Amino acid sequence: MRVLALLDGTVVDPQTPLFRADDLGVMRGDGIFETILVVNREPRELGPHLDRLERSARLMQMRLPERTAWQRAVRAVIDAWPWDTAGQMALKLVCTRGIDGGDGTPNGFAMGMTIGADTIRKRAEGVTAVTLERGYATDLMERAPWLLLSAKTLSYAVNMAALREAEARGADEVIFTATDGTVLEGPTSNVVLARGRTLLTTPPSTGILKGTTQGALFRAAEQAGWETRVETFPREALFDSDGVWLASSVRTITQVRAIDGTELKADADLHAELTRLYESNY
Amino acid sequence: MRVLALLDGTVVDPQTPLFRADDLGVMRGDGIFETILVVNREPRELGPHLDRLERSARLMQMRLPERTAWQRAVRAVIDAWPWDTAGQMALKLVCTRGIDGGDGTPNGFAMGMTIGADTIRKRAEGVTAVTLERGYATDLMERAPWLLLSAKTLSYAVNMAALREAEARGADEVIFTATDGTVLEGPTSNVVLARGRTLLTTPPSTGILKGTTQGALFRAAEQAGWETRVETFPREALFDSDGVWLASSVRTITQVRAIDGTELKADADLHAELTRLYESNY
Repeated sequence: MRVLALLDGTVVDPQTPLFRADDLGVMRGDGIFETILVVNREPRELGPHLDRLERSARLMQMRLPERTAWQRAVRAVIDAWPWDTAGQMALKLVCTRGIDGGDGTPNGFAMGMTIGADTIRKRAEGVTAVTLERGYATDLMERAPWLLLSAKTLSYAVNMAALREAEARGADEVIFTATDGTVLEGPTSNVVLARGRTLLTTPPSTGILKGTTQGALFRAAEQAGWETRVETFPREALFDSDGVWLASSVRTITQVRAIDGTELKADADLHAELTRLYESNY
Repeated sequence: MRVLALLDGTVVDPQTPLFRADDLGVMRGDGIFETILVVNREPRELGPHLDRLERSARLMQMRLPERTAWQRAVRAVIDAWPWDTAGQMALKLVCTRGIDGGDGTPNGFAMGMTIGADTIRKRAEGVTAVTLERGYATDLMERAPWLLLSAKTLSYAVNMAALREAEARGADEVIFTATDGTVLEGPTSNVVLARGRTLLTTPPSTGILKGTTQGALFRAAEQAGWETRVETFPREALFDSDGVWLASSVRTITQVRAIDGTELKADADLHAELTRLYESNY
């Protein structure tokens, strides 16, 4: 099931072509996006997602339709979604730089998409992952802003290729590492690690995306008395931890059961506790 | 002027939307492309461009329509182009992985586009460039194929951001360097350097695109008695040379007059000679 809305709030047939061949989004992946989880008509972390969309637009030096237009499109998709048959959806916001050689008017849409049974199952059952080199140093972002590290652009071919590599190795997911072995992020997720009653995640200063779901989990965990730390940690720390999770809007808090073929502590009670903490936000 | 043809050879209105919102090309820059120079109805280096498109598809593990389909679309655009008013065009071949969640049928097109007066002027007058870090080591490609180095994917947001950075610094072009200072490539070109009667360019094993225009120049230069070398050289070599050029299909052989604010030797006779060599292929 797919429901497509334009930024003026019109709902249109998702099978009707929407983008010209010379849209810069088509020709060069020149645009930005967000993916939002909507449960029972309520978009989760909509504010942080729109904040991040605006941040990506700034890093890309591209015009972005105003916030109210995105809110209108989100509402239109939610109103048109068949909630009686599907209680959750992944809501994608996409914005391109517009037509090549045009006046810079961006083209955007909001699209609600079914969340696969496989994804929902993994939230409960966990995943296996491989670590893959991302090829970057952790201090690159600050000195090389043209590399668009930390912007959520439409140029996601590498993220998809990494997931194919994981599949070829018999795993579900990827955890990227920096040149010095620092854990970065997944292709579409943030990495969270537990050590006793402390949760850790990698700082955005390494060039990764600031996680909206990770942020929601940490917010709830702090209120429940957990310590939270945003600091770098090496690949080895994944194995020497009380649990590893991938946090993403659609997968929510997914437990990692094994990395590079090595089983991890994957405590079911701890997973249930973190899931409860995350869900307590809504 | 834009002329758009589908892979069945149909010419369609370029202003009519062609891609669905959920095409993977739109949503994730998940596809590949080539840009070919066509002069007086003759596509230059069509074979090498189609070879490279096929190589990119292999690296991306995506299905690609057969070669005859691309040749048919190229012919359709050339036949429909107004040659009496525009003697050259840039011909773009684009292929996406198709619809998200679909059966993997790729979506492609060929589009002829006017070459701007600015581009044609730069072929004669040269450009200024800045060097920018690409953030990668030169040995990364071989050990990390999931990073898609050397594939010409639609995920070109970084290439475009680098060109904006050049513009912000008052320059026309970018020359990327690796972490060890090795000269890599431009965002849409290869770097060629002259030392006496020797031409040098960076090897594709560093993760750069194999240049079709650079290849044509080297082919002609060898026949004319030049020595050619495909080997790495450091940023400093740019300044300690008898000339630097950017080779690309649409810009052909563009001389670099200054890099990072430092004037280079930009000998007009040598530029004329290299241009003549390149043109002698056609």
